[in-house]
Amino acid sequence: MKQTADLKPQRVRGFTVAGVHAGMKKNGALDFALIVADRDCVAAGVFTKNQSKAAPVLVSQEHLAARATSIRAVAINTTSANAMTGRVGVENARITARMVAAKLGVQPEQVLVMSTGVIGTHLPMPKIEQGIELAFAQLGADWESAARGIMTTDTRPKMASLRVLSADGEYTITGISKGAGMIAPNMATMLGVIVTDAELSREHAMIALRFATDRSFNRIVVDGDTSTNDAVFLLASGASGVHLRTTADMHQFNEALLIVAQSLAQQIVRDGEGATKFITLEVVGARSDAEAHAIGHTIAASPLVKTAFYGGDANWGRIVAAAGRAPALFNPDTARLLIGRGEALTDDAPGLLLFENGLPTRYSEAEASAIFREADIIVRLELGLGNGAATVWTCDLSHEYVSINGDYRS
Amino acid sequence: MKQTADLKPQRVRGFTVAGVHAGMKKNGALDFALIVADRDCVAAGVFTKNQSKAAPVLVSQEHLAARATSIRAVAINTTSANAMTGRVGVENARITARMVAAKLGVQPEQVLVMSTGVIGTHLPMPKIEQGIELAFAQLGADWESAARGIMTTDTRPKMASLRVLSADGEYTITGISKGAGMIAPNMATMLGVIVTDAELSREHAMIALRFATDRSFNRIVVDGDTSTNDAVFLLASGASGVHLRTTADMHQFNEALLIVAQSLAQQIVRDGEGATKFITLEVVGARSDAEAHAIGHTIAASPLVKTAFYGGDANWGRIVAAAGRAPALFNPDTARLLIGRGEALTDDAPGLLLFENGLPTRYSEAEASAIFREADIIVRLELGLGNGAATVWTCDLSHEYVSINGDYRS
Repeated sequence: MKQTADLKPQRVRGFTVAGVHAGMKKNGALDFALIVADRDCVAAGVFTKNQSKAAPVLVSQEHLAARATSIRAVAINTTSANAMTGRVGVENARITARMVAAKLGVQPEQVLVMSTGVIGTHLPMPKIEQGIELAFAQLGADWESAARGIMTTDTRPKMASLRVLSADGEYTITGISKGAGMIAPNMATMLGVIVTDAELSREHAMIALRFATDRSFNRIVVDGDTSTNDAVFLLASGASGVHLRTTADMHQFNEALLIVAQSLAQQIVRDGEGATKFITLEVVGARSDAEAHAIGHTIAASPLVKTAFYGGDANWGRIVAAAGRAPALFNPDTARLLIGRGEALTDDAPGLLLFENGLPTRYSEAEASAIFREADIIVRLELGLGNGAATVWTCDLSHEYVSINGDYRS
Repeated sequence: MKQTADLKPQRVRGFTVAGVHAGMKKNGALDFALIVADRDCVAAGVFTKNQSKAAPVLVSQEHLAARATSIRAVAINTTSANAMTGRVGVENARITARMVAAKLGVQPEQVLVMSTGVIGTHLPMPKIEQGIELAFAQLGADWESAARGIMTTDTRPKMASLRVLSADGEYTITGISKGAGMIAPNMATMLGVIVTDAELSREHAMIALRFATDRSFNRIVVDGDTSTNDAVFLLASGASGVHLRTTADMHQFNEALLIVAQSLAQQIVRDGEGATKFITLEVVGARSDAEAHAIGHTIAASPLVKTAFYGGDANWGRIVAAAGRAPALFNPDTARLLIGRGEALTDDAPGLLLFENGLPTRYSEAEASAIFREADIIVRLELGLGNGAATVWTCDLSHEYVSINGDYRS
């Protein structure tokens, strides 16, 4: 049986955290988070592929390039994305890192920064400074506050933990993330920080993070937009004393990290802006995994598919039409489409076959509609062209999404 | 001054048309249209690039390949798209052509067919037959009925005409189209039929249609979806006796066809599902026209950009962010973003500069918001990278879009 992540965040040796209200959110909610390591960490990051990279992305990329084996903290603010803010924005990101570093008595390059919020506004530096002060005063094990401190239009914090028993002993992986809108799979696609007390090499940290993000954060779609600020960091303190020496140990870590990352990614989809449904899109039989992913992404990003799910309308033709315009080979004559309840089709619940041999089957419309009205829906598209497979998670497009995004800044 | 199309459709020599109610739409509205030529026409078509092509697309492609210089009619039904309907669907499309051809005493390959409506449902053949009977009984000059006969979620008919005085005499171009949802620029992107009484060669017809659709129907975005049924036809009867002999005459025809096609395309955007605003996106200074188009399309298809327009929120950061994730070179440091009222910036109304040198300008938020609350908005993005340019037309994403598409089939 597949291991699942614990939604209650577990303490990780070597790390303390805090989430505070620094006066940025008008409603008094937590708006600044800090993650601090008591020793040098091996760290890796994946970043947005958007060509308009926010200042914190540019600065964190620099710092990781310089100090990937001695990162000591991550500082995260909300309300301002510090994107499209020019040299002043980059300087503000550097000042944030410098202030945190001064508190820790380390170099500024040992601090990573993240921002989320409105594009084109400068960081409110006095409030950032206040956030740092408050956060240092409250550093502890309260991961939930940290997760709340990075929320924007999220309605709930995203947290996941996993304890792993390796050949060399036990270690923990804990992560937080935020999402809600501007979510599409293009490298890392939101903010996420995952820490572990296992000891990793720099190379393994990067490989593990790529492996996990490619199969988690890069497989979710809320609205198809890719932010200027997307980033996911992995920090490994080594404080458990557990070394991952063998290939088996490394694989075990990669799979454990993937479980935590998938949990965080799926929590983002479930809390997508205005989402009322959680849809698992399983594409199999493609010429390659990449083509399966391309088809899954095109279906997941289609406004017509998403509104059909919202309306509980079993308008499956939109799914096949979206597959047909994806940048990957698709042949309706060899394709089969099944739908079911929950997150996977099983032998006991094999799903309802809607489309086969280029034709709708004689399925029951009542049964199809009943499935489309569920909150958790699994869609399986079998292409019959090869062995490529990918699973993409998405949500529906609701009136509430339009309300939230038509009115975000006010 | 640029010539504009007449929204009142003009009679075109050699053609008669009809739009009738054949019992397919439950509300009694017109649901079937027929366009008949009294002589062999030179014809050209552009079709969806979706790999799931509907039966009428496949059959019309065959017929055009066989009889591009002797097309006699176009038959168009609504309510069923005849897509994902297998061999039965193809046979039904052929039967439709055969019935029309029998009435005219011509070959089935001389008839083109189009369908629009729900995917995965078969054509209601008895009603199609009735539609053909009724339409033949009413053939005349009522282009508005024909335009109404192809509407689905459209709220108004789309029609455009232009009279052209060439060196060899006067000819007319008249077209109808339908759109509303499932609109994105990928070859032809909805249904459109344009006829002329000028005499064209087969080669010129295809060149002219490609030229016009590439700059009109392929430049509009409602929701980014590309249908299985998209097609635009051009039929030339030659009944005016006007031959386009010189290069200048041919250019004049191409430009005239473009004016008609742009009018039809813009009418589709203005009547986009749930649209409350008409947005002209002018992208200039790209490395190539194709890259300018790619950036314009990415901005136009972004749900976050579209909801910001809907909300009248001058959240221009979303425009720059969308540009950054487009598959084309973008550098925020060389880019400038301007917005204004209407469909173009002019010397008298040069627009409001929001972003320059990688930074927001010190613009007036009140002025920006006032522009974003207009019904017609021009957005000009100057990339500063080259001479490539493209204009894309789009609409906003509203609550009404979600309502329409969450509830389309019921």
